[in-house]
Amino acid sequence: MLKVDLNSDIGEGFGPWATGDDAGLMEVISSANIACGFHAGDPDVMATTMDLAQRKGVALGAHPGFPDLQGFGRRRMGLSPGAIRNLITYQLGAAQAMARAAGGSLRHFKLHGALSNMASEDAALARTCFEAALRVQPDLVIMVQPLTAMDQAVRDLGCAWAGEIYADRSYNDDATLCARSAPGAVLHDPTEIATRMLEMLRAGAIIARSGKQIPCRIDTICVHGDTAGALGVARKLRQSLEAADVAIAPF
Amino acid sequence: MLKVDLNSDIGEGFGPWATGDDAGLMEVISSANIACGFHAGDPDVMATTMDLAQRKGVALGAHPGFPDLQGFGRRRMGLSPGAIRNLITYQLGAAQAMARAAGGSLRHFKLHGALSNMASEDAALARTCFEAALRVQPDLVIMVQPLTAMDQAVRDLGCAWAGEIYADRSYNDDATLCARSAPGAVLHDPTEIATRMLEMLRAGAIIARSGKQIPCRIDTICVHGDTAGALGVARKLRQSLEAADVAIAPF
Amino acid sequence: MLKVDLNSDIGEGFGPWATGDDAGLMEVISSANIACGFHAGDPDVMATTMDLAQRKGVALGAHPGFPDLQGFGRRRMGLSPGAIRNLITYQLGAAQAMARAAGGSLRHFKLHGALSNMASEDAALARTCFEAALRVQPDLVIMVQPLTAMDQAVRDLGCAWAGEIYADRSYNDDATLCARSAPGAVLHDPTEIATRMLEMLRAGAIIARSGKQIPCRIDTICVHGDTAGALGVARKLRQSLEAADVAIAPF
Amino acid sequence: MLKVDLNSDIGEGFGPWATGDDAGLMEVISSANIACGFHAGDPDVMATTMDLAQRKGVALGAHPGFPDLQGFGRRRMGLSPGAIRNLITYQLGAAQAMARAAGGSLRHFKLHGALSNMASEDAALARTCFEAALRVQPDLVIMVQPLTAMDQAVRDLGCAWAGEIYADRSYNDDATLCARSAPGAVLHDPTEIATRMLEMLRAGAIIARSGKQIPCRIDTICVHGDTAGALGVARKLRQSLEAADVAIAPF
Repeated sequence: MLKVDLNSDIGEGFGPWATGDDAGLMEVISSANIACGFHAGDPDVMATTMDLAQRKGVALGAHPGFPDLQGFGRRRMGLSPGAIRNLITYQLGAAQAMARAAGGSLRHFKLHGALSNMASEDAALARTCFEAALRVQPDLVIMVQPLTAMDQAVRDLGCAWAGEIYADRSYNDDATLCARSAPGAVLHDPTEIATRMLEMLRAGAIIARSGKQIPCRIDTICVHGDTAGALGVARKLRQSLEAADVAIAPF
Repeated sequence: MLKVDLNSDIGEGFGPWATGDDAGLMEVISSANIACGFHAGDPDVMATTMDLAQRKGVALGAHPGFPDLQGFGRRRMGLSPGAIRNLITYQLGAAQAMARAAGGSLRHFKLHGALSNMASEDAALARTCFEAALRVQPDLVIMVQPLTAMDQAVRDLGCAWAGEIYADRSYNDDATLCARSAPGAVLHDPTEIATRMLEMLRAGAIIARSGKQIPCRIDTICVHGDTAGALGVARKLRQSLEAADVAIAPF
Repeated sequence: MLKVDLNSDIGEGFGPWATGDDAGLMEVISSANIACGFHAGDPDVMATTMDLAQRKGVALGAHPGFPDLQGFGRRRMGLSPGAIRNLITYQLGAAQAMARAAGGSLRHFKLHGALSNMASEDAALARTCFEAALRVQPDLVIMVQPLTAMDQAVRDLGCAWAGEIYADRSYNDDATLCARSAPGAVLHDPTEIATRMLEMLRAGAIIARSGKQIPCRIDTICVHGDTAGALGVARKLRQSLEAADVAIAPF
Repeated sequence: MLKVDLNSDIGEGFGPWATGDDAGLMEVISSANIACGFHAGDPDVMATTMDLAQRKGVALGAHPGFPDLQGFGRRRMGLSPGAIRNLITYQLGAAQAMARAAGGSLRHFKLHGALSNMASEDAALARTCFEAALRVQPDLVIMVQPLTAMDQAVRDLGCAWAGEIYADRSYNDDATLCARSAPGAVLHDPTEIATRMLEMLRAGAIIARSGKQIPCRIDTICVHGDTAGALGVARKLRQSLEAADVAIAPF
């Protein structure tokens, strides 16, 4: 029987501002990537999010990003490796304590936004980030985009990791994501998305827009909940996977 | 043989800005209260400070404060108990991870600035802070101003704590600090300071300006290093204590 | 013919986060109180908001608050008069330049959140804020809650001001707002709200819950747009006022 | 008679942290580039700095940078042109109001840190910055590194500008600064620095390390005051220039 995890970025509010329907999304996913305060997620938002995930049985993960609240961690910043290491350590530690206060503990780790994009292109940067995380908590499972520089970094480190694909994004023949600006790069049709995910899981491969199959490890699927439409897509995906006898559970 | 700890607030820089002579002070103290990023101490400053303390054999402590960098955590803020609990949890977790990355671990906990002042007046607030800290790390030793609301809170909690006196401040007859604006409230003469500390240690009591002795637990003396003069006072105090056969060591 | 201004807090997003339906609200109001970056409203949000207001012919106002993004400026902070003066000056200057870049200029000034609450209780604080604003732009019209300490401050200063009432809040017999926690403190029924506002405008008085009339200057009515319901109330109020031959225009 | 302006970055503290000897430096320079709150310089620091400059007769300038306090605006950030334009507008407006509150007004504008470095390489970015500034205050004089992309931008805009050279930095043959890491890139000897500046002023040209003369407009010399040594260099330079009958005055 096939098995897969469904993950989503969660707890991305700050102060008076919320994003998406976190409670609704928690009914769908098995792993929550929780913002750690630098690009989103102040301590109060983190506490609420951790509590909710614990109650719903959703696995807790740290989702650290650049110290850029206004830019939501999506703007590239030129930081030294030491500064990167320290911001990972700091945010991860904060998330560990918030998880503990909620009666839980962290199980996984996923980079956010521009820091994630940069780490998928630069194995040394990916390694800096992952080493910093593992030094704080050696049993963390690192979420990785297969066949990118992140993949190289976790193999070099010999650590536990989970291969992740995106539910609503098209892939190029080299397993990179199609640029958002390209036509067809972002998928919206729930049925198409569910069908495509099922095909990739059964094939054990990313299937590019061209139809090319790129074998890789698929442990988790990233879904979104920031709009009503996105949440609908996520719900439909879960239903379709379960209808096809795919078990949804943390990796 | 008498024994006492010397503590100081450390790592209170941010970004390009440093304060005081942390390296010099680390030669004098046995416990470092390390800023956790909200009122001072970004992740890079914390990393440098933790490393230095580890190398010097100085015990590591978390020193969390209000989220007010401009005000250095010295301005009172009207936060809910939940918000207080969460900011303690967050900062403490971050400090734990930074300590771990430096090869050490936290041993004590001291509130900073306006949050400390408020907790010394309000036992419920003190309890909120200390419970949050102990939930994250149950074996932390809480630094407490004797005979204040903090004292009540640690007794109610039944946790490990250390009584703290200030090297350079005069006390009223009720064991509160004389207001800084009062004449003689702040002491500057190194010899007078050293003599007075020795008297208090031997008496096991705070000795007020009036001469009144107020018996209390004295485990640690707070010194400063933010000016050349302050560092000189701290050095002289350590020398005088050692010359009088008082052992300087973490509580 | 009666005439009144409708004002609302606008541009209260930050980075990726929006609040309310600013575009919808701009169709209803005649004056926009625009957040200035400290409690909400980064430079990009301000630019978008200023442009929108200019296009809709809505008068521009500065709405400065405490430097507390997480708390949305709603938490009291213990700042010195000098610090208050400087944060008003800074935010007002920033708003002036953003208005100029959008082809407009500021006409009014309204304090936000906890700073407003504190100024309505403390005439010296209110005067500090208003003097700082007028020093930067002498022709600003200050929005004031009638019969509070703010009222005293603008009379002492002899400056231009506008008396403001709240559409959806009940008043005590001393013209203060009923505590939100009290039953009936916040009104939700659009018809009741519109009827009540019309009565107050015609009476030239705040009408307390008890029915007591407290004569005062009413130049502007504060409405909200942060929920769909609130926007509906604002729309209904405008329609009702216009149907009763009250002109809606900036004071 | 030759005439030149001496400028320096000033008011680069934040909250409890100061940098350099601003009061000492104000005795030496004729133009102050004042940090505007994003990379340094909170409203209180700005107020103090503006007051001091006004009292000393030093011309006031805005010195905006990236929103990166921890990185002191020295880390490159990937911002959109719109975001750049808005952060310039915001900071400049804040500085105008602070100047007004101090009884003065801004006369010049200089980019800070990584934003300055990027603008010296990219004429479109430089133009975005300068246009934003001039839209807020059309009579501002823009400080420009001669022969860089900034130079191109001010010529295209047809605005008032001042050519700036660095007292303590060596130049390559293309008028760019020698990389700090290169031997001899940073000069420390006060006599050498003074001699060299006098030569450049008399030649009306940057003189590269190779001896090559690159004719350009020199209106102002940038000096530093962040260390005791730097302040000494600045003082010596001023004395030497005056001894050689060069008048020191704002451009």
